[in-house]
Amino acid sequence: MISKSHPRYESLKLREKIVKASKSGYLADSAMIAHGRGEAFDYMLREKTTLPAKRAMYVTVAMMLLAENPVISVNGNTTALVIDEIIEFAKTINAKIEINLFYRTDERVDKIASLYREHGYPGILGSNSDDIAYINEIKNPRASASKKGIYTSDTILIPLEDGDRAEILSKSGKNTICIDLNPLSRTSKMSDVSIVDNVVRAIPFMTKITGDLKMQDEKLLRNIIEEFNNEDNLKESLKLFEIKEE
Amino acid sequence: MISKSHPRYESLKLREKIVKASKSGYLADSAMIAHGRGEAFDYMLREKTTLPAKRAMYVTVAMMLLAENPVISVNGNTTALVIDEIIEFAKTINAKIEINLFYRTDERVDKIASLYREHGYPGILGSNSDDIAYINEIKNPRASASKKGIYTSDTILIPLEDGDRAEILSKSGKNTICIDLNPLSRTSKMSDVSIVDNVVRAIPFMTKITGDLKMQDEKLLRNIIEEFNNEDNLKESLKLFEIKEE
Repeated sequence: MISKSHPRYESLKLREKIVKASKSGYLADSAMIAHGRGEAFDYMLREKTTLPAKRAMYVTVAMMLLAENPVISVNGNTTALVIDEIIEFAKTINAKIEINLFYRTDERVDKIASLYREHGYPGILGSNSDDIAYINEIKNPRASASKKGIYTSDTILIPLEDGDRAEILSKSGKNTICIDLNPLSRTSKMSDVSIVDNVVRAIPFMTKITGDLKMQDEKLLRNIIEEFNNEDNLKESLKLFEIKEE
Repeated sequence: MISKSHPRYESLKLREKIVKASKSGYLADSAMIAHGRGEAFDYMLREKTTLPAKRAMYVTVAMMLLAENPVISVNGNTTALVIDEIIEFAKTINAKIEINLFYRTDERVDKIASLYREHGYPGILGSNSDDIAYINEIKNPRASASKKGIYTSDTILIPLEDGDRAEILSKSGKNTICIDLNPLSRTSKMSDVSIVDNVVRAIPFMTKITGDLKMQDEKLLRNIIEEFNNEDNLKESLKLFEIKEE
C-alpha cells in the first residue's frame, strides 16, 4: 500500500496499475519501459495538462463529433491505466473501442476483451472473434484492423501507440489523433493531432468538454479544427518541458 | 533481432537486455519502469556523457583510490546492463562488489550471484551465505549490508540505487557516490558525489581514467576531491537537459 501522503502518490499509483497489469499477463514485454519513459516526460511537465494539450483536445473532440465512424484504439497500457475512463469517453462521444496490440497474441487480446466486458463494455472490437482486414492491404500484423472499426473508420484516437502503427494509420488517409507524452516521438510527428499529455488526465478532460461541444453547431466545430496547426502546437508543447527544482 | 541501422539501435539493445533480465527473474517488479525513466532522461542528454558527469567521475575514482575499503553496490538493473564492465572496473580499482537489492529475495540474490560467478567473478559479497549486518543498527532490510563490504566500507559506489537506501547510506557517514540519470532524484540529492550519466557509459569511462589516476600522487587526488562541489555540479548537469529536435 502506498501512503497517500507520499509526495509521488499519484505517480506511484499508476506504476502499481502497470505492474499489476504486467503480472496479469496482458502487457507486452517492453510496456513497463514505455511507462517509465512516460513518467519522466510527465515529470518535466510538472504532471500538469498544458495549454497546447488542451487545444489539441478541443480539436480532437470536434473531429470525433463530426466523424462518421470514430474509433478509440486501446492496448495493454491504456487498459491498465484508464479502462473506465475510456469506456465513459467512448459512450459520451459515441465512438467504438477497438483492441490493437503492437505485439498481438490471442491470449493478451482475450484478457483485454474480458476486462472490458467485466467493466461493463461488451461490444469491444478487435477481439479474436472479430472480422479483421488489413489497412491499405498491407499484409502485416501491424496493419490489422477490425472491419467494423478502424478499417472503415475515418477518425481514430490512438493513445500510447507505437510509431510503426501510427505511421500506417496516418498514411491510410484517416484522421489520426495520438496521446503521447513525448512530443518528439514518431507517433507524435506522424499524427494529424498530437495530444502531449498523460492519458489519465487527457481522457477525463475530453469527456468533460464533449458535453459542451456537443451543444455547438457544426460550423464552430469545423472552425476549431481549421484553426489548428499540429506542427506549431507540438513546437509550443516542446517549449514547456523543463527539468528543474520544484 | 534489432537491425544495426535502426536509429535507436544502442538504446534498443539496452532495452533488450533489461527485458531478458526480467524474464530471467532477477529484476524487481518496477525495474523496467525505472529503466524507461532512465531512457527518457538520457535522451535529453542526447545520450552523451556531459562535462559535469566526467568531473564527478574523476572525483569518484580519486575517492575510491584513496578509500580503505571501497565497494561497488550492484542490483538487478546494473547486472543486466553492465555486469562485465562492473567486474573490470572493480578489478582495476581494487574494489569489492556487493549485491544489494531494494526488494531483496533469496531467489533474486542467488540468480545475480550465479551470474557474477559465470562471468568470472566468484567473490561477490551480499550473497545469501554472506554475513549481514545493519547500517546504524537500523533493523530494516533497506539497511542490510555485508560485514566485509558496505557495512565496514568507507566509500560506496551505488549505481541505480533507490532513494531510501541512498539516504540510509548517506546518513551513515560513508562516502556515497551514485550514478543516476535524474539529477533531481532523492538518490542524486542524498549522495556526496552524483554522476548524472548512463551506467553503460560511466563504468567504462571510470575504468579508463583509473589507470591514469593510479599514477598520480595522493596529494593530487585529494586536491581533485577538495575542489569538487556536488551541489554546484548537479546544478550544472541540470542545465544540460534539453528536449529538442536533433
